[in-house]
Amino acid sequence: MKVLVVHGPNLNLLGQREPEVYGSLTLADIEQELSDLAQRLEVSIEFYQSNHEGEIVTRLQEADQDCDVILINPAAFTHTSVAIRDALAAIQCPAIEVHLSNIHAREEFRQHSYTASVSVGVITGFGKESYLLGLRAAVALVQPS
Amino acid sequence: MKVLVVHGPNLNLLGQREPEVYGSLTLADIEQELSDLAQRLEVSIEFYQSNHEGEIVTRLQEADQDCDVILINPAAFTHTSVAIRDALAAIQCPAIEVHLSNIHAREEFRQHSYTASVSVGVITGFGKESYLLGLRAAVALVQPS
Amino acid sequence: MKVLVVHGPNLNLLGQREPEVYGSLTLADIEQELSDLAQRLEVSIEFYQSNHEGEIVTRLQEADQDCDVILINPAAFTHTSVAIRDALAAIQCPAIEVHLSNIHAREEFRQHSYTASVSVGVITGFGKESYLLGLRAAVALVQPS
Amino acid sequence: MKVLVVHGPNLNLLGQREPEVYGSLTLADIEQELSDLAQRLEVSIEFYQSNHEGEIVTRLQEADQDCDVILINPAAFTHTSVAIRDALAAIQCPAIEVHLSNIHAREEFRQHSYTASVSVGVITGFGKESYLLGLRAAVALVQPS
Amino acid sequence: MKVLVVHGPNLNLLGQREPEVYGSLTLADIEQELSDLAQRLEVSIEFYQSNHEGEIVTRLQEADQDCDVILINPAAFTHTSVAIRDALAAIQCPAIEVHLSNIHAREEFRQHSYTASVSVGVITGFGKESYLLGLRAAVALVQPS
Amino acid sequence: MKVLVVHGPNLNLLGQREPEVYGSLTLADIEQELSDLAQRLEVSIEFYQSNHEGEIVTRLQEADQDCDVILINPAAFTHTSVAIRDALAAIQCPAIEVHLSNIHAREEFRQHSYTASVSVGVITGFGKESYLLGLRAAVALVQPS
Amino acid sequence: MKVLVVHGPNLNLLGQREPEVYGSLTLADIEQELSDLAQRLEVSIEFYQSNHEGEIVTRLQEADQDCDVILINPAAFTHTSVAIRDALAAIQCPAIEVHLSNIHAREEFRQHSYTASVSVGVITGFGKESYLLGLRAAVALVQPS
Amino acid sequence: MKVLVVHGPNLNLLGQREPEVYGSLTLADIEQELSDLAQRLEVSIEFYQSNHEGEIVTRLQEADQDCDVILINPAAFTHTSVAIRDALAAIQCPAIEVHLSNIHAREEFRQHSYTASVSVGVITGFGKESYLLGLRAAVALVQPS
Amino acid sequence: MKVLVVHGPNLNLLGQREPEVYGSLTLADIEQELSDLAQRLEVSIEFYQSNHEGEIVTRLQEADQDCDVILINPAAFTHTSVAIRDALAAIQCPAIEVHLSNIHAREEFRQHSYTASVSVGVITGFGKESYLLGLRAAVALVQPS
Amino acid sequence: MKVLVVHGPNLNLLGQREPEVYGSLTLADIEQELSDLAQRLEVSIEFYQSNHEGEIVTRLQEADQDCDVILINPAAFTHTSVAIRDALAAIQCPAIEVHLSNIHAREEFRQHSYTASVSVGVITGFGKESYLLGLRAAVALVQPS
Amino acid sequence: MKVLVVHGPNLNLLGQREPEVYGSLTLADIEQELSDLAQRLEVSIEFYQSNHEGEIVTRLQEADQDCDVILINPAAFTHTSVAIRDALAAIQCPAIEVHLSNIHAREEFRQHSYTASVSVGVITGFGKESYLLGLRAAVALVQPS
Amino acid sequence: MKVLVVHGPNLNLLGQREPEVYGSLTLADIEQELSDLAQRLEVSIEFYQSNHEGEIVTRLQEADQDCDVILINPAAFTHTSVAIRDALAAIQCPAIEVHLSNIHAREEFRQHSYTASVSVGVITGFGKESYLLGLRAAVALVQPS
Repeated sequence: MKVLVVHGPNLNLLGQREPEVYGSLTLADIEQELSDLAQRLEVSIEFYQSNHEGEIVTRLQEADQDCDVILINPAAFTHTSVAIRDALAAIQCPAIEVHLSNIHAREEFRQHSYTASVSVGVITGFGKESYLLGLRAAVALVQPS
Repeated sequence: MKVLVVHGPNLNLLGQREPEVYGSLTLADIEQELSDLAQRLEVSIEFYQSNHEGEIVTRLQEADQDCDVILINPAAFTHTSVAIRDALAAIQCPAIEVHLSNIHAREEFRQHSYTASVSVGVITGFGKESYLLGLRAAVALVQPS
Repeated sequence: MKVLVVHGPNLNLLGQREPEVYGSLTLADIEQELSDLAQRLEVSIEFYQSNHEGEIVTRLQEADQDCDVILINPAAFTHTSVAIRDALAAIQCPAIEVHLSNIHAREEFRQHSYTASVSVGVITGFGKESYLLGLRAAVALVQPS
Repeated sequence: MKVLVVHGPNLNLLGQREPEVYGSLTLADIEQELSDLAQRLEVSIEFYQSNHEGEIVTRLQEADQDCDVILINPAAFTHTSVAIRDALAAIQCPAIEVHLSNIHAREEFRQHSYTASVSVGVITGFGKESYLLGLRAAVALVQPS
Repeated sequence: MKVLVVHGPNLNLLGQREPEVYGSLTLADIEQELSDLAQRLEVSIEFYQSNHEGEIVTRLQEADQDCDVILINPAAFTHTSVAIRDALAAIQCPAIEVHLSNIHAREEFRQHSYTASVSVGVITGFGKESYLLGLRAAVALVQPS
Repeated sequence: MKVLVVHGPNLNLLGQREPEVYGSLTLADIEQELSDLAQRLEVSIEFYQSNHEGEIVTRLQEADQDCDVILINPAAFTHTSVAIRDALAAIQCPAIEVHLSNIHAREEFRQHSYTASVSVGVITGFGKESYLLGLRAAVALVQPS
Repeated sequence: MKVLVVHGPNLNLLGQREPEVYGSLTLADIEQELSDLAQRLEVSIEFYQSNHEGEIVTRLQEADQDCDVILINPAAFTHTSVAIRDALAAIQCPAIEVHLSNIHAREEFRQHSYTASVSVGVITGFGKESYLLGLRAAVALVQPS
Repeated sequence: MKVLVVHGPNLNLLGQREPEVYGSLTLADIEQELSDLAQRLEVSIEFYQSNHEGEIVTRLQEADQDCDVILINPAAFTHTSVAIRDALAAIQCPAIEVHLSNIHAREEFRQHSYTASVSVGVITGFGKESYLLGLRAAVALVQPS
Repeated sequence: MKVLVVHGPNLNLLGQREPEVYGSLTLADIEQELSDLAQRLEVSIEFYQSNHEGEIVTRLQEADQDCDVILINPAAFTHTSVAIRDALAAIQCPAIEVHLSNIHAREEFRQHSYTASVSVGVITGFGKESYLLGLRAAVALVQPS
Repeated sequence: MKVLVVHGPNLNLLGQREPEVYGSLTLADIEQELSDLAQRLEVSIEFYQSNHEGEIVTRLQEADQDCDVILINPAAFTHTSVAIRDALAAIQCPAIEVHLSNIHAREEFRQHSYTASVSVGVITGFGKESYLLGLRAAVALVQPS
Repeated sequence: MKVLVVHGPNLNLLGQREPEVYGSLTLADIEQELSDLAQRLEVSIEFYQSNHEGEIVTRLQEADQDCDVILINPAAFTHTSVAIRDALAAIQCPAIEVHLSNIHAREEFRQHSYTASVSVGVITGFGKESYLLGLRAAVALVQPS
Repeated sequence: MKVLVVHGPNLNLLGQREPEVYGSLTLADIEQELSDLAQRLEVSIEFYQSNHEGEIVTRLQEADQDCDVILINPAAFTHTSVAIRDALAAIQCPAIEVHLSNIHAREEFRQHSYTASVSVGVITGFGKESYLLGLRAAVALVQPS
């Protein structure tokens, strides 16, 4: 079983970007924790980050070929990208949406998600834990106990 | 460390209520799984269900006295109860909101939550796993690794 | 065949509450007329009134055990209660919504009903006759001619 | 005492029009049941169907001359016709609005009625029973017990 | 010079229709006053009333052949008819919109006019004087002093 | 009988202000035509123009003392002044609202009038004729034929 | 195979109606081109134009008896007629909606179509070609290659 | 003369609940000040607090029997309870609405009050003084100077 | 300690202006009662009324020099004046907003206040008592007991 | 004459993407049919697909150099891309918008098109035929018969 | 060449008004810097400040007589004054709108400007530099390099 | 000191793109003028143009490393890109937003900017001067006089 983790735009800045909102961990830190957990859960994991909507669309399209479940933090594209929504709907591979910050407690425009309704579920507000919980959710989804 | 789990209205019907939306597990089944996980995570857990907004408000008010973190599925009250929102804001004890179904994929009125923005975060759409992930989030919140 | 009649908040004040809107009959008067008609139609009837949303939710949840059809005037809760809506959706027993006044001719906020779309149908504006017609609709629903 | 029954556009197609929404009875079937009930209730009844808003306006204008109460299913015109609303408001003869399907459970645009607020009341969602209950409401209105 | 006066739906009921809103004059009374004024102003005048949107559309289409200016009270169609708007826009003959009652002081839905923006101007709220002023406006438009 | 004519802000620029919208007549030209017509109709007339909302409010407040009817073109204040609306509502003297241009054919924000619903009626779109018709309406209102 | 072409209100004015929007061809010109193309495509074709919503409803209701596919330009009724929408939904015969002008580039109110969502598809903005393409679409629909 | 003071949900937490918004006084402190003032004003006073909408509805219904005026801080129910609004409208006893914080300076959803329009008036933003002023308003209402 | 009382537009008409809404007392009556109460409370008081938004802005700007607290009934400007809002925000002197009528029970546009959120609090609906309570609130604000 | 066909994001998945919405043909199948038709119509044709908004913008900018008309299915970008709209507006080459599915019968957010109003026209809902009809429209546009 | 600088309401308070928003410079400081820059740019400059909408309207009307370009900070009137908008549209003299603070980052109601769309352009958010840049823009507009 | 100038999509077409809106200068012309002014102001300047949202995000992320202030015309992305907004918020380097045309005088959708509220300020409507003024604003920001 393999999990594809997709990070949207600006997440490569993590740690330096608005630390009061997003925390001080870097994306590498989070990926390391995810890798550790993946190893404990005995699943394979791959990371992908892009600031390009089109590249994310393309990567998602390939997911059916090479993974079983997607963990995606679409970041800004959550609120603006019908293309990513359509990609998620077009593939068979299920997706889980995660956010570091609690989008319900932020600007009005961050409270609508194009991708949430084509995902299995959403985890928002727990910082790095959002990703770790998302990985557990992914494993539970594909390998229900 | 103690976790208070609060179930909102109609969750006592779980298993017989719209199984295509909410799954076939009963609330007792879920509570059993939560107890098992709590034991593994070495935390204490208490369950509370009510169909009464006022009773939930009162129970939440008492939380500061007897627990460290709240796991709440406000169910219908998510979308209508400012009183529960105010109770969550009034206490010191942090709360985590969970939903069995993916509320982003349901009726328009279920897509606004009065309680989400005063919670730490939200987990929605994973069925019983929403609760189990929520318990892990609660533990991580109070006992960060 | 048994019909459960549920009256929402403030209907216990009937006869003294805004008689220009709701008429001068008391709830007892209406229940007497309903009992008489139920006897003529050879169905059993039970009445329940509460000012508590939670109590109405709980009573509706029990309906599957002890009645065949529900006649409900949710009164103020028509416009604010997702919990009652969810209870009606959760049970098998069909419900018929009635209103004494014509809600389409009143304040804007009274023109949206959370419960109407999960009911079989709605009868509004005929005073006590709304209940009597509702009882006939209930009987016709369960015992189609 | 005479009741005028007015059927709006496309109701002449009843039985073949979207049977999953409107049922399989024809308009003639319903009119037969209405005639039978009218006979039992000892009132006179007349039927009028038109696909033309203007013809319905004109027929309603004549109602003061030849009938005591109107039973109207404005169908599509419910949602679009200020002219029919104005005709109902202009005459002395009271009107009762009925709908076969539960308009609260259908498209958004079917949930606003121009005619409901100038009618005595509305009965919606009971199929042919909407008409039969409407006839009883009409009789009760003009000949209160 | 000839003026065509077009009366929309329900105006044939004038005098008996909601006299507190529309006054007690009949349409014949108003037409008589209009004829008298037309004679004084030395213009020809023709009256047309219909409850049918389609008939009004057709009559307006013919206006280019037989008249110089249109005085129209679209009544209910003011608020619902794009077809009459399109007819007014399609012809060369200018139109003046009049209303007996002050539509700005009535229901919200009466405050939007599809026809006003394709008319030269609007006169609303003066009872029969709306028509008489409209006739003067029509003459001034075609025969500017 | 005396008519007070009140011109709102920027009407003193008439003739030079956006002539494609407002025409090339000056305010003096229009007042001359109004004076001539007033003489023919044997009524007294007074003119008042101000760019100050407060001055117009004050002038309207004095109207009960010295005139019988008000002819007002509130211009920009039509769309923004609750104070002028309140002044019109506070006095006994009836008011008639006029506009040179057809406000229904202009910007969205010009299509709402705070003053129209507390006026007897509105005349809009006829250029100088709006005023002349308004004067006739004023006379007809106070001296009905 | 037979195609019914339905033209809505004011299309009989084509060629003289706002030629900058609708072009200078008459309806007869367009029908001639349609007939020529129908002949080439070896299908039968019938034309129907009406300014009456009710007549169009009635004609559409009959379509199941005498044709295989409908080509309809509802014109103004596109935006206002639930009755025509209901007629299209009530019959088995599929419909194709066409517009001469590009309704997306016109007034806001022309951008909502009641009929589009119950049609197979929509062709808008190509002048007479909208009809010719619509005829090809109709043939392709009934006789897929 | 007797005044009933009704405190809505979470007001029992006063002093510990969001002190930056609601101040550091407890409900007992405020009630003591109210009792002192009542004594000075020579009126009787009774206090009632509940977190249950239904209990507040029931207490308000009884008010006609045992008090002359109501001082109510509906707290969260201000914004969500049609049932309390209906109870206030159903009884003869007048009500005065008070709020500790200035609801106009808080979240958007706190700026609509279901209860304000059926109250005599509203006092908002003065902390404990809102209650004391409300008591004076109550006395002035029943015993106008 | 000195209180500045600012009355907005049309309040100079009090007593003659819509007495069913605003009562029959004149502004002088109210000011007399305020002066009497000020004397009892041992504070100085000054009155200012203007129909001009700009004059009120200027008077408020001067308040920091010569008074300790402002009692303002912005009347119509409540709903339209950002300039007065900005003046209140710009000065140090705190303001209390009062209204004679219950603005929550009036037209929709009167239910938004630009000034309320920059005031300490609002008192609305008690007639002259709104001012008297406001004066007490002002004193309590500056001289807390 | 040369036609440029531009396919937006996810159209490369055609045939496997939601076949109940988009059909089972692949993009290659459609391009083959388009090539065949282009050959019959004696026009040159070029295909371009991208999941990148920016690439589509750049390709459209080059269109003035190398083609006469554009056939574009912007897919998800229809609803979100002002950049593509601006590119279409910036170039001289006319564009025709096509959609496989009937966007009027899908989610609310798919019913607004940024690109439609800067295109010549739109063809939506006919599956592969949308493209073929679009090609005919393109040829008719550049080579009017 | 002469530039008229118009300051709207409350700008006379600059330096003491909300310094965290507007900075600590006084209006005199800004005018001194503007004068210095004007001298360097060899243009004449005049300053005008008023808290009165009407006075600003009047001053703008005179601008055609005595200046070449207007630099205006309408302050609060930006969001409420159609009269100032109309004055700007009525005169020939072009206007440039400036704001000290970034209105896009402030309250929702400050994000609509009545005056911006009748100005040449807008400069917002640079404190005193907004004015200085505005002066350069004014000079560049009238004396393009 | 170094200024990074970022041009959004389609700005590479400048000079040929809708010259009535954007003027006839090319981007190279504007960059030449900017370079000249930068030299006069003794600051370094770099230009970057892209049609790709993702590339602009990436370039902005690098800005903290190599420049002191950003001058950005996000063009179409102004209205649609949360990703660029987030990039601007994530970096320390301040940004100034400029637009060639006056976006307040254009389509409704161009009047909302995602980027404006995270920029220091906005300059819109002055053609090439918007850039030149923006450069001056940038210098003044980093090197306040």
